[in-house]
This record gives sequence, C-alpha cells and structure tokens, in this order.
Amino acid sequence: MLRRNDLARTESHNDTPHHERFGREPIGTTSDDHVLNQDVAFSVPFTHRVRTTGELSGDDFSVLLDVLQPGGSGPAKVLLIAERAVATSSDHVQEIASNLEDADSIRLVDHTMLLEGGETIKNDSAGVEAVLAKINDHDLDRRSYVIAVGGGAFLDAVGYAAAIAHRGIRLVRIPTTTLAQGDSGVGVKNAINYFGKKNWVGTFAVPWAVINDAALLDSLPERDFVSGFSESVKVALLKSRSEFDWLCENADGIREREMDVVTRAIAVSCKLHLRHITEGGDPFEMLEARPLDFGHWSAHKLEPITNYEIRHGEAVGIGVAIDCFYSHLKLGFPIEDVRRTCQCLQSMGMSLWHEALSPLDRLLVGLEEFRQHLGGRLTITMLRGVGDSVNVHEIDTATMAQAIEMLRREVGV
Amino acid sequence: MLRRNDLARTESHNDTPHHERFGREPIGTTSDDHVLNQDVAFSVPFTHRVRTTGELSGDDFSVLLDVLQPGGSGPAKVLLIAERAVATSSDHVQEIASNLEDADSIRLVDHTMLLEGGETIKNDSAGVEAVLAKINDHDLDRRSYVIAVGGGAFLDAVGYAAAIAHRGIRLVRIPTTTLAQGDSGVGVKNAINYFGKKNWVGTFAVPWAVINDAALLDSLPERDFVSGFSESVKVALLKSRSEFDWLCENADGIREREMDVVTRAIAVSCKLHLRHITEGGDPFEMLEARPLDFGHWSAHKLEPITNYEIRHGEAVGIGVAIDCFYSHLKLGFPIEDVRRTCQCLQSMGMSLWHEALSPLDRLLVGLEEFRQHLGGRLTITMLRGVGDSVNVHEIDTATMAQAIEMLRREVGV
Repeated sequence: MLRRNDLARTESHNDTPHHERFGREPIGTTSDDHVLNQDVAFSVPFTHRVRTTGELSGDDFSVLLDVLQPGGSGPAKVLLIAERAVATSSDHVQEIASNLEDADSIRLVDHTMLLEGGETIKNDSAGVEAVLAKINDHDLDRRSYVIAVGGGAFLDAVGYAAAIAHRGIRLVRIPTTTLAQGDSGVGVKNAINYFGKKNWVGTFAVPWAVINDAALLDSLPERDFVSGFSESVKVALLKSRSEFDWLCENADGIREREMDVVTRAIAVSCKLHLRHITEGGDPFEMLEARPLDFGHWSAHKLEPITNYEIRHGEAVGIGVAIDCFYSHLKLGFPIEDVRRTCQCLQSMGMSLWHEALSPLDRLLVGLEEFRQHLGGRLTITMLRGVGDSVNVHEIDTATMAQAIEMLRREVGV
Repeated sequence: MLRRNDLARTESHNDTPHHERFGREPIGTTSDDHVLNQDVAFSVPFTHRVRTTGELSGDDFSVLLDVLQPGGSGPAKVLLIAERAVATSSDHVQEIASNLEDADSIRLVDHTMLLEGGETIKNDSAGVEAVLAKINDHDLDRRSYVIAVGGGAFLDAVGYAAAIAHRGIRLVRIPTTTLAQGDSGVGVKNAINYFGKKNWVGTFAVPWAVINDAALLDSLPERDFVSGFSESVKVALLKSRSEFDWLCENADGIREREMDVVTRAIAVSCKLHLRHITEGGDPFEMLEARPLDFGHWSAHKLEPITNYEIRHGEAVGIGVAIDCFYSHLKLGFPIEDVRRTCQCLQSMGMSLWHEALSPLDRLLVGLEEFRQHLGGRLTITMLRGVGDSVNVHEIDTATMAQAIEMLRREVGV
C-alpha cells in the first residue's frame, strides 16, 4: 500500500477551471455571498441488476459470480447468509457456498451464516445485530458483498443490516419464495419491526443485484408457492391488460407448478414491479401514493388480526378481491373483470375468504393505519379498468361493506 | 377520514396506455419473458433546502416555519431536539420552541428533548433509541419533522434516528458550530459509532432543510469557533482560488469573530460543499474517491491518538497543512501556496502542530484505516494547484515524513 507514488496513476478532478465545468459564475464573487436561500434539486444515480437463473447451485453459478465485481484491492470479500429452513430443505445453499469457496475472483470470509426467517427475524433486533457483528468481524467494507438467500422477511432483516453497516455493504438478494421473487426481492427497501409495529425501522436501499433462481422454489410448501402470485395478479391489474389475460389463462398451470408458466409469471411480475420503481418517479416513496399497494390496506390488517396465521400473499389475494369489488361499485371497474380476478386467484389455489373479514369494524382500522404509515392524506389506489388505476382520498364505508358482501357471495360462503 | 368518496378528488395514474407512457413495447408480449438479465440505471430525485438567518429565535423565525410544509391531514407534527449545552448556554432554543408552540401551521408535539452532544451521543445507541421512542410515542410519520439544534456529532446521531424511523422522518438541521454550518450540516450522511469504530453504522439521507443561524454561534467557545474554518480553507483549496485568496485576506477577521466575515466565509464554504454534493455526481459515495476529505486521512487518526482532546477542525487544519507539503514535494503544488495555507490557518487561530505527529508510524496507520472505510483501493486527494486536485493511490512514506518535517520547521517547533 505504502509504495512510491506513481504520477501516471493519478486522476485529475479539475482539468478545466471550476466555473467552466459547472457552467456558472464561480462561487465567492457575487454580492449575495452572505446569504444562502436555495432549494437545490439533484439526483442520485443507482443501478438495479436483475437476473433469472434455472439452477444457481449448478450450471448457472457463473451468473452470481459475474455480478460480484472485484474489491479494488484484491478479491472482494463475500459473506453468505441463508435462511435456516431454506438451507436445510435442500443442498442448493451448500452447493452455492461450495462454489463460492472455490472461486478465485472473490473471497468467501466465513461458513454460511444461518438465521431464522419469517417474522421471527424481524421481531427483535438480535438477527440484525448478529449480521452487523459478522460484518465487523471480517472487516467487510463498501466494496464487499453480503449474499442473502431466503424469503422476503429474511431479506428485509439481512438487507437492513447490510444497509446501515458502513452506510451500505453491497447486498445480493437471492429470494427463495414466489412472493419475494416476483415482488419484494426487486424492491428498494428493507426493515425490521420495532415497538411491535411492522417495518417501523428501516431504510430505502437499492440492492446490488437480485437473482431469481427457479430451482430454489422446488422445496417451497404449497400454500407459500401459490399465494405469492397474488402480487403478480395485483401488478398486472395495475399495469398490463395483456399480462392479466395471460395470468387468467394460466392460473391452473401455476397451481400445478408448471415451471414454464411459473418462471414466466414471476419474470413478468418482477419486470412490472421493477419498471414501476425505476421509471415511476418516486422510488423512495416521498409522495403520498403507493400505487403498488393496491389491495394492501386490508391485507396489512388481516395479517395481525389472524395472528399472522394467514400468509401475506393470501391476505393480498383477499385484499385485491375486496378492492376490485369496491372499484366496481365506486369507479365502474367492469364486473366481468372483478369476476375474472376472483376466478384467477381461486384457480391458482388461493382462498378469497377468511372469517376475520367479519366484523368489518376491525378491518376498517386498517385504513387509518395505512394512512399513518405513509403520512399525509389517506391515499388508496383503486381501479377504473385493468391497467387504469386512480388514487382516492376517501373511502365510503357503507360501499366497502357492500363490496365485502359481494365477495362473500362470489366465493359462496 | 372515512367519508364518502368524491370522484372529483381522484388522480389518474394512467390517462394514456402503459406502453405509450413508457415509450416501449408492453411487458409480457415478447419472447424473452422468461428471462430477466437487466442492468437498469435510474435516478432518485432529492431537494436540498439551505437557508441563512441572522437570528432564528427572533425576527427570522419565519424562515424555519416556511420550510415546514403541511402534513397532508392537518398541521404537520414537529419534534424539537436540542443539544443540552446549546440549550443551556442561551435562550435561543427556548425562544425557538416558544415560537413553534405558538405557530398554527404546525403542531409541536412535546417539550424540547435535550440530549448530550459530542462523541458522547455517538458512542452508544441510547441517544438514538431515545429519539426513536419519542418519535413512536407521538406517532410521527414521514410528513412530520424532527428539528435538531446542535453540533455535528449531535446532528449525526439525531439524523440517524430520524432516517431509520419509518424509513425517514423529515429532518431539519440547525447546526450550532462553525464546523457544522460550513461543512457537515449540509452533508447527506449520518452515523453513530459502533464496535468502537467511528461512524460504523449510519445511512445516506438528504436532510429536509438546513438552517445556518448566526446568532447560535455567539456562545461557541473560542477553540470550537475558529477551528471550524479549517474545512472552509480545505474546500477553497480544492475548489476555488478566489475563495482561498479571500480567506487568506480575512483570516484575522475570523479570529476576531467579525460576523460579516464569519457569515460570508460559512456561506461560501457551505455553497462549495453543497455544489460538490449535488453536482459532483457521487453524493452517496459509491466511488472510491472522496475528494472533500483532503487532509483527512491524518486528521481522522490524530483524533483517536489524542483521545479526542484535539478538535476535529484542529486536526483537519494540521492534516491539510501536511498534505499541502506532500503535494508540494510530489506534485509541484507551489510552495508559496503551502505557506499561505499555513499562515491563513494560523492567523485564524489554529495551531498546526501536535506532539502526536511523532512518531510517524502511529499516524501512518491512518492511511490503511482511511482505505478500509471506503473500501477498494487507497485513494487520497492531493493538490497540483489551488482548485486543481488529483487522486493518488499510493503514498510514499519517506516523502510524507519529509512533508511533516517541513511543517514542523514552518511552524517553528
């Protein structure tokens, strides 16, 4: 490190004078130099890397290796962290670790770190603290990588730790659920629960890369497998008539876990989410609206009401169905599209009813909680048509009750 | 909240079809729909609001009120947090609190929260936890404000808490030191110390607003007052010959605390830092270089070597002088500019020597620590001329020893 300075290895910051580079008069020469009264708009550039693989632990391993850039001074350090249940349900994680161990271009710093997934890891800070300690033990820096293999909640917690260590270690997400592959894995946020409140502490942080691997879905239990596709239906309803039609036609294939259908549905869902984040103009949610949360105000409430017995994806399926009926009653969203939505979700294998939907009062508290989380006015996304969403700022509770009653009749409860 | 939905109050997301808005073919219709292999570049927009006031607790209070936008549903909630020493040294904080209490456009949620400043608040997480608890107690949301009044370390810790609560409560920084007003206050980062390491945990976060108030500097002790201007000299050396000349001519006025000179020096320093952040292309430090850290590799090491008995600004003054001599020896930075730099800092009232500079070995460890913090190659900014900086990736220790010896002789030790 401390060798002779080589002048040829320098990079000039200033080959042209300061005021020419900025194309303005130099600071320090004008009469208002005592005063600062400026709103300065600027942008921070990011790159979102998304990959699809068939079997990352086998032939496709190079896809992972290719996204890991050198560390600057020697091979980059890599820490592999996996959700315990994922690591024990197959050999995939072990094989990825073994491949990383053998790679010359990076340096795996430790055995695979195993942590619990689900809300467990998010409900206290022990998991985050353990990851921070491991990052510190191995002196990882901003050019090192944390590779996280697990479901959405696990990725949230590990991602939060990676985001705050040195203000951001590079995070490679390898989501292992259909939900995380098609939706949250490609998102730009992380969080843990705090003060008993979901996602109360966290940051916005763009992952270094996201790799959706088909083989990792093999061992996913039935309910987890199918319920992840409620988010695919949701994003198609918001963004793409053609994708909505395709999902309706292929709902049976998803339930049957036909991998051709499954990987295509995930890839398109992922692309639609990604496009919203990168082109929607508000990736760090500084505005009131959060259009991707269609159907989520009730879903977020159903989860705690049922003590998280219901899966997030299942709750979203129900929430999407409810808000489709409400959109029909209030905004003229065509009833045939409401029915197709319900049939699509049911054909995938999801139940669209839960006894927790009654009494309604308990559910409606979710509207105010939804507003509080983002702050500002209540802003709920509804549909006028497939691919045609609007924000509404008030919800008519009588109509909402009617919408839920229509859903009850639709599913024949 | 739960009133009748008013259709006139909706905002359409999709007045044009999806593919027209994005100007591309719709997702879901091409043959590569199974595969994602994309590097998607995108930008996140921010606004940096900077204000200068003469007496925020008096006539200029409206400047603070004007940056606090309504909360969406009623007046925005505001939590005022001040550094204890600042709040007790004058009535300014109390008067700001009283003005906020009287304002109709916002809602002050509690008494002023008082916390220790300096490294104390950064050295354990109790301060951050206390701020988080207060934010939770009052149900602040992303449209609420934390107003933080204090020095750089205090702002770092309170800013970190505000940044992770709900992924970001709006933070108004009111820096109370010359250092924080001219430099760190306008920065886009926050941190606390962890594992005994400075700034180990933190985030990049753009503050909602920064208000530099002249009256708050009145009670600042001599050493803290003058040493803050080493960062002004540093940024002028990097960015502006005219400002460097001005500082050399007005160094006495800074030592004498002539407020006209002081506020102008701070405002220009702040503008130069702000311009680097907003136009330099790397506000969240994703590259190896950190040009604003000229002179900081040794400064960061001098602080712990002296058990933080030396002020950060004082350490930076010494570090700048050292790297000016090194730049002279290695890059031909003119000796007259080196001497003027030293005279300028000394005229401001800073000492450019500390016994901790010897033995040299202890100091040189700082080079590797500086590299580790950012990761990647060692990258140190040096000068070829005033306003003409370059990155070097190797440091010649014999020449560095010679540079420090030249500094010793220059200051007559």
